[in-house]
Amino acid sequence: MEALAPVSTYRHSKIRITTVPPTQFIDLTDRLEGLVAEAGIRFGFVNVQTLHTTTAVVVNELEPLLLSDFETVLEKAAPRGDAYRHDDATVRTVNLTSDERINGHAHCRALLLAPSASLNVIDGRLLLGRWQRVFMAELDGPRTRELSILVLGEGER
Amino acid sequence: MEALAPVSTYRHSKIRITTVPPTQFIDLTDRLEGLVAEAGIRFGFVNVQTLHTTTAVVVNELEPLLLSDFETVLEKAAPRGDAYRHDDATVRTVNLTSDERINGHAHCRALLLAPSASLNVIDGRLLLGRWQRVFMAELDGPRTRELSILVLGEGER
Amino acid sequence: MEALAPVSTYRHSKIRITTVPPTQFIDLTDRLEGLVAEAGIRFGFVNVQTLHTTTAVVVNELEPLLLSDFETVLEKAAPRGDAYRHDDATVRTVNLTSDERINGHAHCRALLLAPSASLNVIDGRLLLGRWQRVFMAELDGPRTRELSILVLGEGER
Repeated sequence: MEALAPVSTYRHSKIRITTVPPTQFIDLTDRLEGLVAEAGIRFGFVNVQTLHTTTAVVVNELEPLLLSDFETVLEKAAPRGDAYRHDDATVRTVNLTSDERINGHAHCRALLLAPSASLNVIDGRLLLGRWQRVFMAELDGPRTRELSILVLGEGER
Repeated sequence: MEALAPVSTYRHSKIRITTVPPTQFIDLTDRLEGLVAEAGIRFGFVNVQTLHTTTAVVVNELEPLLLSDFETVLEKAAPRGDAYRHDDATVRTVNLTSDERINGHAHCRALLLAPSASLNVIDGRLLLGRWQRVFMAELDGPRTRELSILVLGEGER
Repeated sequence: MEALAPVSTYRHSKIRITTVPPTQFIDLTDRLEGLVAEAGIRFGFVNVQTLHTTTAVVVNELEPLLLSDFETVLEKAAPRGDAYRHDDATVRTVNLTSDERINGHAHCRALLLAPSASLNVIDGRLLLGRWQRVFMAELDGPRTRELSILVLGEGER
């Protein structure tokens, strides 16, 4: 029955976010659920990709004290006050811009997180566990940031 | 030749796991290989997604001493004995449940790992290197856990 | 209009890399952009997967001093000189090979990074932000390494 056969389809969106403090976890879940619903895809993947090198995509619980614990762990792994060669104007020659920021720690924190999260779309909905929320992690705010969201999979013809 | 044209297809499965110690790496590889074989997909992706915020998906070698080294590294990055605000009953007000656990360290370890792994399916098989195995990392056991496995790609019509 | 309907397609490639120092970040971006262009896919995903347990896939900025900062952060998280049980010949019994390397630190660094990166293909191109580059991280060089690159999505019939 051709009319009922699954057919591949996709929907691409960009999300723009303005961050305020140096470290911030912005919950994207409601927006992602809306994009998945609009995509009309029954089974597939949604790939949430940040377009920056001092941000990351994180999946965890939305509990404000926990988010401050995350900041503590990142500060321990890559302290803001450490000497990063990326920030050393006496030796740096590559990719210099007029608005260069002291942000070696932020790049190093991004290294330990991830630039994207690939999540399953099941029965037309973004599949997440009870406590799972999807965040963009700002590691060098304040900034204006952009994410690319691609939902791709099987819809109904 | 329409009859030989590739056609998109998918197979979704859930895996349920009961963990025992606080930290445990459960090898899912054989089960994933079985699911990929059953899916009848020649080229595509398998996305292995945990549905919890104190677990992760890890790809590395199945060598028991190495897995204990992993636990040591995670203990160093987010020690169990540290004071996490998430565990501070004097200030916490959000997402409290009757069976609340002291598990700030486990969330922080999950932050440094990943909630999912996207892997390639090539010529009908899950592609892994010689030593690569896919694990669910339990970071706050014992618990009963659930993973979602979506295989999606090109089959044969 | 059947002739204009999107159709799923894919392209799989392997990349082989010879690394030199113990830690090295090899920029794959130009090669990935070429593979995406050749794939003829308008919207889809490219999944870049390493096939080794002491390498990782990283997305960040190509700035040589920053890459040395990354090495410093990884050395702090999993120091080369620490005692790893994986390297203890007096207790190890599993997966031993004739060319066994002292590389527990390299496995532990890979644990904190990722075995693959799933990135979006938009309007026929690999979507990356201004400073984003895709690297294979060598954590136990020198070695010969292999990556699998699968581009899958919607082309034009």
